[in-house]
Amino acid sequence: MTTVAIDAMGGDYGAKPIVDGLVMAMKQDKNFKAILIGNKTDLDFYIPKKFKDQIDLLHCDDVISMTDQATDALKRKESSAYLAIDLVKTGKADAYVSAGHSGASMSLATLRIGRIKGVSRPAIATIMPTVTGTSLVLDVGANVDCDANNLKEFAIMGQVYASEVLSIDQPLIGLLSNGEEPSKGNETTKEAFKLCEKIPNFIGNVEGNDIFNGSCDVVVCDGFVGNILLKTAEGVADTITTIIKQNLRRSLVSITGAVLMRKVFKKLKLKVDYAEYGGAPLLGVKAPVIIAHGKSNSKAIKNAIFQAIKASGSDLNNTIENRLNTYKD
Amino acid sequence: MTTVAIDAMGGDYGAKPIVDGLVMAMKQDKNFKAILIGNKTDLDFYIPKKFKDQIDLLHCDDVISMTDQATDALKRKESSAYLAIDLVKTGKADAYVSAGHSGASMSLATLRIGRIKGVSRPAIATIMPTVTGTSLVLDVGANVDCDANNLKEFAIMGQVYASEVLSIDQPLIGLLSNGEEPSKGNETTKEAFKLCEKIPNFIGNVEGNDIFNGSCDVVVCDGFVGNILLKTAEGVADTITTIIKQNLRRSLVSITGAVLMRKVFKKLKLKVDYAEYGGAPLLGVKAPVIIAHGKSNSKAIKNAIFQAIKASGSDLNNTIENRLNTYKD
Repeated sequence: MTTVAIDAMGGDYGAKPIVDGLVMAMKQDKNFKAILIGNKTDLDFYIPKKFKDQIDLLHCDDVISMTDQATDALKRKESSAYLAIDLVKTGKADAYVSAGHSGASMSLATLRIGRIKGVSRPAIATIMPTVTGTSLVLDVGANVDCDANNLKEFAIMGQVYASEVLSIDQPLIGLLSNGEEPSKGNETTKEAFKLCEKIPNFIGNVEGNDIFNGSCDVVVCDGFVGNILLKTAEGVADTITTIIKQNLRRSLVSITGAVLMRKVFKKLKLKVDYAEYGGAPLLGVKAPVIIAHGKSNSKAIKNAIFQAIKASGSDLNNTIENRLNTYKD
Repeated sequence: MTTVAIDAMGGDYGAKPIVDGLVMAMKQDKNFKAILIGNKTDLDFYIPKKFKDQIDLLHCDDVISMTDQATDALKRKESSAYLAIDLVKTGKADAYVSAGHSGASMSLATLRIGRIKGVSRPAIATIMPTVTGTSLVLDVGANVDCDANNLKEFAIMGQVYASEVLSIDQPLIGLLSNGEEPSKGNETTKEAFKLCEKIPNFIGNVEGNDIFNGSCDVVVCDGFVGNILLKTAEGVADTITTIIKQNLRRSLVSITGAVLMRKVFKKLKLKVDYAEYGGAPLLGVKAPVIIAHGKSNSKAIKNAIFQAIKASGSDLNNTIENRLNTYKD
């Protein structure tokens, strides 16, 4: 039975949505254990009576806040993130979920849990909605300066995650570039293109719109580009929503229209809502680490927990190690 | 009176939308002249009788197609793009508009018309919709590998274009990065941050969502990132539209809702429709060069022509030269 260590203190809205998310997950699936790390009094207050027996609590008072430096995380040995990662390191838990400081989670996981053999740098992957399903984009923030070999490793790790955890059959990999032709790209991506050609189901260069049109399952880029494209996508979606709302307020007729369209908007929300996908896995470390959005609601936490459980039950890490070895230069 | 040289052959839909766009522009403003370069028989067929006297035609048979290499453009001396650029070079026209091969327009403009003194590399800028108005993003494709100094020059050129042509008072410049803090960025952008600090109204690092929320007027990035973010933004907008349409088909109630909301959708289209903004200026060359989308409709061409006219009547190039000199290292 999988045990998930959950940092209950890091999120922007405190412990409540974290506890609520865990309870939602437990209602849906009884086959896992959880250890919540945070202020015991708070946690105890939020956990419904009938779930108290199923959830272990580990008390701590310190939390690494969003304004702290990620590099400080290693010194803050009594923080919720440090303690939660250590439960995984010492084998008391199998996987880690946090909505806290993502840089801190990443540093702690990389340095305390350790990298899979053959991984130069772990990468944060994020699940994006497409017209037909989802795509996995990595790296989205962990590594701002990457070389071609880093990108090749991201391609392999992403493909393994897509097949082992997201259950995509034969996932197709695309290398994000400024055009589809092999001649397109900057110096690094052109070199990465050559390295990736060895990997099965590498479809070559893809463009920004291919993230959403279902033409590939795994999109590879460096963390600088990945972060910018994530924020750009959020920005466009927010702007469209704002423009719709601004104009709705001006007319009773269009408000009526919006009411009649509410099912469509609900469906739209479902598709573009990150909460559906839970969190972003940190790929390349020796145990499943899921980094949830700081603003995660309970549903996002529930889905992040299920991602952690699924990854823990899969052959993710061995497969990554083997593939990296097979396709090394 | 400004004379605009218009490449009538390069667009994806042939000469018709180009001629229609020019006629639309002439109906709105009689104070400019135009030379259309393309197949005389075709052009003559599309131009309404009452406009034939106001439009000069320059015949040619060759067109640089989208599948041609940009580097071939210099050898294709009888192509519509080459001839149109040469009209500007020889002073027979003041500005250039094309919906053809953007790389070819860029090469020809840079090498035949020449760069403004102090410009290392011209950049393509694009106008993006924001909640409150527009923002100018550059570079969006001309230069995939940039150094810090290139980015600084883009910042200056973009700021001058925003004030002189887009009539924005005291335009704010943001450097696109993976976080707002000065410590964020890749090696190149961190170095560029220091160089840009000298420029008035530089607000520091901005993120992908800041392109659309009105927090700055000019967003600076390299052409690799710029191309990816443009395509990502297009992808998100298209996906949202597709999801709405897919779900509309399923219910009469939501179709009724959509009909009632049509004014809202129309407003939305206006805001996100590139045709509203015309084309992308190539900044840093000695004459106004506007690169329109290959799929431009007549309205986009009309607006591209007006952009060219406005740039031609402004003090754009002198101001760019002076500012580059003021803020050089």
